[in-house]
Parts: sequence; C-alpha cells; structure tokens
Amino acid sequence: MKKSCLILALAAVMMASCKNTASNEAAENKASNPVVETILARTSVRSYTDQKISDEDMNTILRAAMSAPSGVNLQPWHFIVLTDTSKYDEIFKDNKNLPMFKRAAALVVTCADTTWARGEGENRTVGPNPMWRDDLGAATENLVLAATSLGIGSVWTACYPFKERYLPVKEALGLPPQVLPYEVVALGYPDSENTPKDKWKPERIHHERW
Amino acid sequence: MKKSCLILALAAVMMASCKNTASNEAAENKASNPVVETILARTSVRSYTDQKISDEDMNTILRAAMSAPSGVNLQPWHFIVLTDTSKYDEIFKDNKNLPMFKRAAALVVTCADTTWARGEGENRTVGPNPMWRDDLGAATENLVLAATSLGIGSVWTACYPFKERYLPVKEALGLPPQVLPYEVVALGYPDSENTPKDKWKPERIHHERW
Repeated sequence: MKKSCLILALAAVMMASCKNTASNEAAENKASNPVVETILARTSVRSYTDQKISDEDMNTILRAAMSAPSGVNLQPWHFIVLTDTSKYDEIFKDNKNLPMFKRAAALVVTCADTTWARGEGENRTVGPNPMWRDDLGAATENLVLAATSLGIGSVWTACYPFKERYLPVKEALGLPPQVLPYEVVALGYPDSENTPKDKWKPERIHHERW
Repeated sequence: MKKSCLILALAAVMMASCKNTASNEAAENKASNPVVETILARTSVRSYTDQKISDEDMNTILRAAMSAPSGVNLQPWHFIVLTDTSKYDEIFKDNKNLPMFKRAAALVVTCADTTWARGEGENRTVGPNPMWRDDLGAATENLVLAATSLGIGSVWTACYPFKERYLPVKEALGLPPQVLPYEVVALGYPDSENTPKDKWKPERIHHERW
C-alpha cells in the first residue's frame, strides 16, 4: 500500500514536472513555441501520398483561412474545394502545375469578392475594394499554416494577377463577375521529408529608417 | 538500489506517457492544436500596456515574417522597426492611427522591393515583380501570428495602395525608389482582454464549382 502511494506520488510529481519543463522551455526559448515552429517548418510540398483529407480537417483549414484580418472587416473571401480530378484538364488547361494538381488530395482555389459594399441607407458605400488582395494573402497563409499544423503539405501557386491563368479558372468554376480566383493551393499528405529553407536575413531589418 | 531503479524506470514511463497523451490529444481533436488556436485567437489589438518588446521576441517575430512563401522565392520583404515615437508626427502625419501608433510598444513597417531580378548571365531577367503584394500579405500575417503566440497584441493598418498614406511614409523613412511601404503593424502587450470575432461562414465554401 505504501509502495503504491509512493508510485502515485511520484507519478504526480513527474506529470507536474513534465508540464513545468514544457512551460519553462517556452519562457526561456520563445522562438521554439509550436506556432513559430510551424511557421518556420512550412515549406512548399509538391508530392503526396494517396491519403485523402477528412472533412473535419478541411473545415479546420478553411476556418483558419476565414480568421484572417481583412480591410474594414469585409472578409472578402470564398473558397472552392476541388477533388474531382477529371475536371482539372478543363479548369487548368495550359497550367504547368496540372500534373501536380492531379496528384494532390485536394485543391482549394482561394477567391475574392472584389466589391466594397458597406453601411446602410445614406451611409451605404459601394465600389471596388482596394484591399482584397492583402486580405486574401493573409487568408491563404492561414490556410497553409493550419494545413501544416495538421501534417498536411501544401503549396500555393499563383493564379491572380496572371490573366492567362485566372480568366480560364474563373470561367470554368462559374465564378460571378465580381469574384476573382486568387491562388490555387494544392494540399496532400507529404510522401517524403520536406526541409524548409532557412530564410533568415537580418540585413532585411532596419531600425527607425532605411 | 532496486528502489532507485524502480523510480527511474517509473519516471521514464511517466515522461513517455506524458508525451503520448499530448500527441494522442492532437490526433483526436485536431481543431484545437496550438497553431489553429492561435490563428483563431488573433484579433486586432489597439490598446497596450507600457511593456517593451525584447530584441529576442522582435527577432522571432521577424524571422517568422521572413519564413513566408514568396513567388519564385524572391523574398521581396524588408522590415523597418520603429520605436522612436518622437518621429511619428513626421512619418505618419494625417494618419488617423497616429495616436494608437504612439501608444504601441513598436511599429513594424513591412516593405516590398518591387523589382524582379533573377538568374545569371543570359538567363538574367529584370523587371517589376507582379507577386510582391501577395508575398507581403503572407509575411505580414506570419508576423502577427508569431506576435500573438508570444502574447503580443497587434493590428495591421493599411498603407499601400493608398498614395496619400504610403508616399509620405516612403519619403520619411528614406526608402529607395523601388521599395514601397506595405502595411504598418502596431505591436504591444494588450492592456485588456480582446475577444476574437467568430468569422466562420460555411456558405463561403463551394465544392467543385461556384
């Protein structure tokens, strides 16, 4: 009985010390928190296993994308999820990434409603939204970071502002006139190790002025 | 001696089980991993305590920003770190965010080198970079997420593409002709609770086409 008490007490101490160790490490070396680690670990993944992405994970990824900041909170994004590879020849004809797209578990075409519509009655303003591209950049980065955190590889490939790429996609996906396809993000479980580039360049940091 | 062996063995088992519990939890409830949690928790923070940001934390934040993806890996970003509030009247005259900027622990002006220069010899191509804005959007989102993960509040305020805002900043900071100020990110430790908006809109998700 005494021995089991000792074991239980020891177990409690070990559990507590295990937690404390983790939080002390976080305090001492903040650069290694899981968020920063994932940001640094994200890298373009272009080769995938056959594993599908669950609906739950896809929703988590898209919820993260929708949590991005946006100019005056317009949240101008839409997301087209593609998994039917038989349509890709039509949607992405002439896109050099077509073979990779077909190997991916899913594609997400991040899209922007480019109109600004805000306020009511006399205060209503309608026109083009000058900030949609910045909002979509943030949302797309959230999307790939959330994927990375779930063990899902990703690569974002440029669609906008290249007319020869985005106009065929816009037509094939049936987007309304005011909605533009922004980027095509390929997603899938990596079939090999992918080492992120070290892009740390302290010379890009300037203090008080250039 | 036997008892110490038992204790050591038990310690090892507890440490291992502690780790396993963490990774099982991650597998069972992926939506709540620390990365996704931080993405969902990030919200605009506009009111700060007097606490400064350490150089180590600022470097972590900027390393995260530099880890963003960029078109053909041009990494077109520069970062101007501002803490000398006595200069803000000159840099941000007419900017409605000036009072908030002065209360922030630091500002980071994310900037873009808008030129494309790539390859060597006959393969060298030089011209405008059509993707810098997307790269800066991703870098700026990484910046605010890393800040959030360190308990530092942030808000990104639009500079580009508004000429009346970015031209005075460009001049006051002495940026070279090809470098544009993109966003002004205010950073500081929050002086109160900030509840993120729930921006989940499943109607923004479309399958296979619009």
